[in-house]
Amino acid sequence: MKNKRFSQIDASIPTIRRLPSYLNVIRRALEKDLKVISGTVIASELELEPIQVRKDLAVTGIVGKPRVGYDVKELKNAIESFLNWDKKHKAIVIGTGNLGTALIGYHGFKQNGMDIIASFDSSEDKIGKFIINVETYPMDKLPSMVKDESVDIAILTVPSENAQEVTDTLVNAGISAIWNFTNLKLKVPKDVLVLREDLSSSYAVLSVCK
Amino acid sequence: MKNKRFSQIDASIPTIRRLPSYLNVIRRALEKDLKVISGTVIASELELEPIQVRKDLAVTGIVGKPRVGYDVKELKNAIESFLNWDKKHKAIVIGTGNLGTALIGYHGFKQNGMDIIASFDSSEDKIGKFIINVETYPMDKLPSMVKDESVDIAILTVPSENAQEVTDTLVNAGISAIWNFTNLKLKVPKDVLVLREDLSSSYAVLSVCK
Repeated sequence: MKNKRFSQIDASIPTIRRLPSYLNVIRRALEKDLKVISGTVIASELELEPIQVRKDLAVTGIVGKPRVGYDVKELKNAIESFLNWDKKHKAIVIGTGNLGTALIGYHGFKQNGMDIIASFDSSEDKIGKFIINVETYPMDKLPSMVKDESVDIAILTVPSENAQEVTDTLVNAGISAIWNFTNLKLKVPKDVLVLREDLSSSYAVLSVCK
Repeated sequence: MKNKRFSQIDASIPTIRRLPSYLNVIRRALEKDLKVISGTVIASELELEPIQVRKDLAVTGIVGKPRVGYDVKELKNAIESFLNWDKKHKAIVIGTGNLGTALIGYHGFKQNGMDIIASFDSSEDKIGKFIINVETYPMDKLPSMVKDESVDIAILTVPSENAQEVTDTLVNAGISAIWNFTNLKLKVPKDVLVLREDLSSSYAVLSVCK
């Protein structure tokens, strides 16, 4: 992952990756009307070391009270704010196969600010159709959508052989972040963030450790 | 992730997670009929440090020749063998929504030894139907399938509210590894490996760094 902007963020990528799991625990605590929660309880729930939890949560600016813990509502707001999940992120899905369709329906996104405004496909019979409430557009509408709507995140679920071409189109249209679900390593300028979601990494761990 | 067996494996989880990307590079080199490939070329392709690449690849038992590099075919076989990707892994998918369907069609799995032998769903109208060549069975057939077919990996894509119940059924039937795509933290005995695939971790990085 290469991105100049990473150096400006006061948290490591592993810490950022763990924050959603903390948020899950906090939200469940809030649903149970808990007012405070201790770092130790959060740690045991997630099977992490308490010191790790305290360090991770410190990036949000919130510090727990000794022997008491964290104010649940305050911590929830602080994590959501740190993650920018209290703001809208306009996203598009390119490729409306099963994976693209699954991602459009993924409930965790909407709850956390992701607003999928459109999907794109090259197949004639998909164009104009809706997946839930998201309309599918033809590929030639991609550049104008990215520009006119100031799309934040492009979710790429096209076949690998089309991935670089679509990426070039996205980059030329001014996209700043691509979530790559294909198995191609995309070539992009340094100021475009590409995050690759690679299922074979997890499958490797399962194959070796099972 | 908790598993006694991890301690018996001579490679760290991050190394194991990186091995599939090395294998991708090696397979492409083989397609181009390259006989040897240098660690530096692999490193630059994946934007890693050469020393990292050499250390990671050393876990497979293969060492490159100075100024020459790795024998491509030998390295490919060594990685596949280390990952157990030269053997079959029987898998089942539980929950045949869009995500389950996408995973059944994910081409990277079959190529690497995963053999999805059945899928399961609680919805009457899905039972008996085929996704590609995988038949969907009713949930009450789950225990006998796991036992009789010695299933290695259960891929869980059911709604979160059913996830623990299905997990208990799987554990009682003797499953050893669960790939959890739900957002529930599953409770399992220590000798069952659970790997959680959590899309919100990546979304967090995108939201913070874009």
